[in-house]
Formats: sequence, structure tokens, C-alpha cells
Amino acid sequence: MPDSPVITLTTDFGYTDPFVGVMKGVILRINPQAVIIDLTHGIRPHDIQEAMYVIGMNYDYFPKNTIHAVVVDPGVGSGRRPVLIQTDNHYFIGPDNGVFTQIYDKSGDDLQVFHITAEHYFLATGSPTFQGRDVFAPVAGWLSAGVDATNFGERIADYHTIRIPAVKMADDNSLSGEVITIDQFGNAMTNITAPDIERLSSKKPGHPLKVVFHGKEVPIKNFYAQAADGGVSALLNSSGCLEIFVYQGKAASRHNITVGDTVQVVLT
Amino acid sequence: MPDSPVITLTTDFGYTDPFVGVMKGVILRINPQAVIIDLTHGIRPHDIQEAMYVIGMNYDYFPKNTIHAVVVDPGVGSGRRPVLIQTDNHYFIGPDNGVFTQIYDKSGDDLQVFHITAEHYFLATGSPTFQGRDVFAPVAGWLSAGVDATNFGERIADYHTIRIPAVKMADDNSLSGEVITIDQFGNAMTNITAPDIERLSSKKPGHPLKVVFHGKEVPIKNFYAQAADGGVSALLNSSGCLEIFVYQGKAASRHNITVGDTVQVVLT
Amino acid sequence: MPDSPVITLTTDFGYTDPFVGVMKGVILRINPQAVIIDLTHGIRPHDIQEAMYVIGMNYDYFPKNTIHAVVVDPGVGSGRRPVLIQTDNHYFIGPDNGVFTQIYDKSGDDLQVFHITAEHYFLATGSPTFQGRDVFAPVAGWLSAGVDATNFGERIADYHTIRIPAVKMADDNSLSGEVITIDQFGNAMTNITAPDIERLSSKKPGHPLKVVFHGKEVPIKNFYAQAADGGVSALLNSSGCLEIFVYQGKAASRHNITVGDTVQVVLT
Repeated sequence: MPDSPVITLTTDFGYTDPFVGVMKGVILRINPQAVIIDLTHGIRPHDIQEAMYVIGMNYDYFPKNTIHAVVVDPGVGSGRRPVLIQTDNHYFIGPDNGVFTQIYDKSGDDLQVFHITAEHYFLATGSPTFQGRDVFAPVAGWLSAGVDATNFGERIADYHTIRIPAVKMADDNSLSGEVITIDQFGNAMTNITAPDIERLSSKKPGHPLKVVFHGKEVPIKNFYAQAADGGVSALLNSSGCLEIFVYQGKAASRHNITVGDTVQVVLT
Repeated sequence: MPDSPVITLTTDFGYTDPFVGVMKGVILRINPQAVIIDLTHGIRPHDIQEAMYVIGMNYDYFPKNTIHAVVVDPGVGSGRRPVLIQTDNHYFIGPDNGVFTQIYDKSGDDLQVFHITAEHYFLATGSPTFQGRDVFAPVAGWLSAGVDATNFGERIADYHTIRIPAVKMADDNSLSGEVITIDQFGNAMTNITAPDIERLSSKKPGHPLKVVFHGKEVPIKNFYAQAADGGVSALLNSSGCLEIFVYQGKAASRHNITVGDTVQVVLT
Repeated sequence: MPDSPVITLTTDFGYTDPFVGVMKGVILRINPQAVIIDLTHGIRPHDIQEAMYVIGMNYDYFPKNTIHAVVVDPGVGSGRRPVLIQTDNHYFIGPDNGVFTQIYDKSGDDLQVFHITAEHYFLATGSPTFQGRDVFAPVAGWLSAGVDATNFGERIADYHTIRIPAVKMADDNSLSGEVITIDQFGNAMTNITAPDIERLSSKKPGHPLKVVFHGKEVPIKNFYAQAADGGVSALLNSSGCLEIFVYQGKAASRHNITVGDTVQVVLT
């Protein structure tokens, strides 16, 4: 472990309660050198799918050997297992409820998943309702302090995954995806990626594409300020995904967009 | 003081203004080694009682010698005193308005309370309205840098406390408490603790207990996911307090729960 | 650069998305020693003027050589330039859209402004929509790691500024300003400063002043708790600006105050 090991926190705890602060206290009590970064605590309460996208799309911007704790955990206290994941250059800690599905999908042969059972590393509170504080924070702390991943429990292969909405070829000339998250600016990100679009486009090289959303064609832009007319537009966003937006407007609330809405890309 | 002294901040400043960031700048100017952790800035504006519970229930998760600055301070600029508290292993800094009542209650003979008067440690802005920046942040910074607590002012014994709502025995078979905070998930925490319930229970060993809230009996669970039917339920939460909740629901807004609502535990 | 260089972040990204966390990851990958402080992420979306006030009024509370990254950037991806500013003891990084107007106004001969063009320091994502992650964070990281400001691009003199609402002398006996921001407590800060008021006052030494707002005189207080009657009042706030407030009330929402509302100070 490096001198200043980084631990990120991703939760649905919001910002009004002391839950996140308490997790940081627990970590610092174990490892005063830990550098703790909030990825976000604004995951919609209990939304495992949103948390899966947030950690899956963003973990790789952090330094090698970063430890990512994700606590979106509606099943806390029930039988669901706590897990620790080691990939070639990152660690992940959280509930085995599918929140790490994209991590598993992206990992190669280096993937190792451990069922966290070594209770002597836990905080001894006896509470079954706050494993963020009692299990995930202390395991992150000890891992950052140099304890080897194999010390926290047995390796498992039957870890839990959730279904990720897939992009479908509707026919030879069009593909169909859906809105997966809506950000603070009201921009609606879809699951349609740049490679999906390139694959479609390669069927008729040189032919233009159009994006259809809520029954209408929306123009394709390169950056937000190009849509200065205030209309609904689309672009490839900074995560490499097709996004529906209104320049300096709140597309989602203005146009009644919700997670799950269909978006099509059509080859003309 | 250790190499990386921890300072926690608890305020009602929210997250839209630069007030908290400025306090951190002031601290780092004095002690670049300080590790500053937000406990929460989501205290309801001017709610001294909520801040009292948040710091009183959570300070002990932080490392020994942590400095806790609490700035919920409707009387800023008036006669109320700034205080510095030293207990056996933590420090507290804030206004003498009762926000540290639980700290006083929990402390033993090691408790020392100082009226902060040593103005040469303050930021010289002349403003009476932002002591978080001008008094509490610099005192936390200097204390973390090794200045002894006794340097900041005279010891006092007449520090201010507020009335903490007490759990009452309604009769031999029941006790009565109240909702003290509502969290991000809409869960309503009461002031009834596990020891309170054990004391009641010990009067008729083996007899079951029931929880009565808003005129109805609510079932008692061990963890949230046990209440998958979506009904109002109760459990002992991670702070060791009885809590009223709805699984994956917002109990407080759905069922019109507010701070101060009565909760009863009855021995049947 | 010192051992623990400080980088502040000021954005309109809010707290629900992972954007800010990702910027911190990018910085730490470049410089693990950086100490990253959130000034605020609660700037109203796309509000360049609000961001200008926030950074202009608060940067100086941070240690010498702090690097301030400001990302309120409606024109991201268009022609607007990224800039790096070096003053006598602070650095600023952000879009050349006027957000640094107050920094330019306050700086002396030491001011140097660079057009950031050294792409080998950028994150190579190819995305034009998130320069906070791809340009400003890495430049802040490399600058904090010791790269000289002159390495990031050519010095420019034609940097962009925006009009700052000026305080006007309405006549010999009164001046007129406006509300520039509203804080979490509903307090409305104006652009009228203590020196403005002193200048007016010096015309008739000893004569009292009155503040007129929304057509009515409002009493002048020294600190919030002096207005315990709950009426609309005025005081000089902790930034040295005249502020309209209601004690423990939300003046702005209760009295329908918005940014741009006129406030007058009259010599009687």
C-alpha cells in the first residue's frame, strides 16, 4: 500500500445525516494516513442500479490500488453477504447485491471476490443495520493499512449480479437503448455508447444518423453550447454515452424524462 | 498532538454556500497537517437540540484527541460565550448555548471547560456574525497545532445546558419517549434506548413488548428488510435507539411524523 | 510548492453526481500529496456571476499558493479558452468566461494570465463536455506537483471580464446597490460594502443612516440575534457587505427577495 492510500465512498446516505462522517471517523481510527474521497452520497435511496453505473463508470479515474466502498444496501442485516473484490489495480467493498455487476463484467482473469467474514476486523457494535460503519469502513481501513485481501474471508465464485439494460438492434438500421441516469443539470444519460453507434454506423458508411426520443428526432451536437436555441438535443457525453439535454435548461423536468425512457438511433 | 490531527465540523451551514470551505481554509492556513472531516452540515438551521444529538451520539467513532467544532449558533455576536471543552480523549469547540449538553452528561472527572477569550488566536476581521470562521476555526487550528487548551481562556463551571427530552415510565408496564431526529431515509429515531427497554423488560422477564405509535401497535423487527410488507415498523437502530421506519419507504413524510411525536413501549 | 499543496474546487455540479469525486481522483492520480477542499459545489447552474463573487470574496482565507479551480462553464467545448492565473500568492484555474473578474480587479502588477494550451498535461479522453475532469483537474494536479505556470501556455492580456453591478450614488444623500446572492439561511447579501457606507456617511458626519428595501425602512443591527422581533433587518455581514435578513427566518423566501433587488442607503 502507498503512503496515502485512497478510499472512495459511494452511498445513498445523502448529506443531512452524520452517517458518512462516522464512516470516515472509523476509517481514520484504523488508518490515520487514509485519504478519503466522496465519489457521491447522492445515489437515489436503495437504487442499486444507479450505484452500479456510478462506480462502474468512474472508478478508473482514481489512482491504482484505490479502495472503493459502495454502500447502497437495502438488504442490510438480512442474509446478503458483504464482499471484497480485488481486480488488477482496484479494490471494491460493499454488499453482494449486484452493485458491482459492471466491475465483474469489465474484469479479466485477475478478478478475485471474497466473502467478508473475518469479524475480528469489524466494529463490535452488535447493530445489524449500519454495516457501512461496522463492516465496510473498518475493512476499508484495515485493507488500506496493508492487511491482505485474503485475510478477510473465503474466495467465492457465486457473487450476485443484476441485469444491466442492454442496447438492442431494433432492425438492421436502428438500435434502441434507454435513459439510465439523470444528472444535476437535468441531462439524461443513456446506455447507448460510442462503440454501439460506431457499430451501427459502419453498416452504411457515410450515411447520417438520427436520434429519436419521445417520438421526435432530436439534433446531434458536439457540445452543450451548440444547442443555444434551447431545444432538446443529443450528444456523446463525457462518459462516452449518448445523452439527451437542453442547453442551460433542465431537460428532464421540462420534458418529463425518467429513467427507463427509450432512445433510438436510426441510420438514414 | 499526532502527525495528522483530525478536526470534525458539524454545522447548519448547508452545502450551497462557501462558509464551510472558508473555515477549512482558515484551519489549513494555521495547520497544514490538519485532516478535516465533515460530520454533517445538514443540521436544521438554528436547531441546537439536533446538533447536540448528532455530536453527542457520534464523536466517539473518531480517533482519540479529535477536535470537534460545532457551529450551530443562532446567538452569534450576542453575549453568549465561545467554549473549548477537553474530556479524557476528545476536544470540542463551539458556542456555549447548550449544544454540548450530552458531552457534559457523558464526561467524568476529566471534563474541563474553558471560556475562549484569547483574541490573539482569532482571525482579526472585526465581524461579529461569523465566529465559525473568526473564532472556532482558528482555535481548532491552533489546538491541532499543539497549543494547550489552557492557553485559550479561563476554566468555567457555569457552562450552559439545555433540557434533553427524557424517557418517562408512564406506569409500571410502559415507558414513553419521543421522536428526536428524522434521517435521509425518513426513519424517525426516538430517545428510547436499548437500556431503557431492557429495564422495562426486566420487570416481567419473558413477557413480550409492544411498541405503540400514533395510536397503533407497530411490529418490532431486527433489521430493515424484515419489514418487506411496507408497513410501519420499529427496530433498535445503529445508535442503539428505538426507531420508527418503513422499509424502502419514507416513514416520516408518508405517515406525517415529526420531531416530538410520542412513542410508547408497553410490557404485555 | 509546499508538502501539502491545497487545491480548492468551486463548481455548479451539486452533490448528487460523481463529477466532483472524479475530478479529485484525477488530481490524486497526478499528485497524491494534494489536499483538496470543496469551497462549494452549490453555485446555481451556469451562474457565472455568483461564482465570481464566491471565489473573489473567499480565496484569500486559504493558505499562500493555494490553487483555486472554478468550474462554472456553460460554454464548455465551444471556443472559450481555459485559463490559468497567477497572482502574488494564489493560483486560479478555470474557463475564460469572466468568472475571475474580481480576481483581476483585486490584483496588482503581479497578475499573470495564461491561456492553457499544453495538451500533454490534459486527460486524453477526447470528450469536449467535461473540461473540469479533462483539463482543469489535471492542470491543478500538475501545478500542485511543481510544474511552473509558464509551462501550461502563452501569457495573454485579453482575458474576459463581466460587468459587476456597481453601487451608484443616487444623489448626494443616498446610494443604491442590489442583492447579489442569497444564502442557506435566506439572508440576502448586497454589493454595498462597508467602505461605500463610510464614504456616504462622511458627507454629513454624525448624521444617522437608514436602509430602504422594498419601499420600506429596515432597521440596522450589529448581529443577527439583535433582530429578535422577527422583522426584516439589515447588517454588515461577515464579508463586509450590507445584508438583508430575518433572525432565524428565511428572509428571501418569506419576503420574496431575489438577486437583483434594489437596496438603498440614505443619509438623513
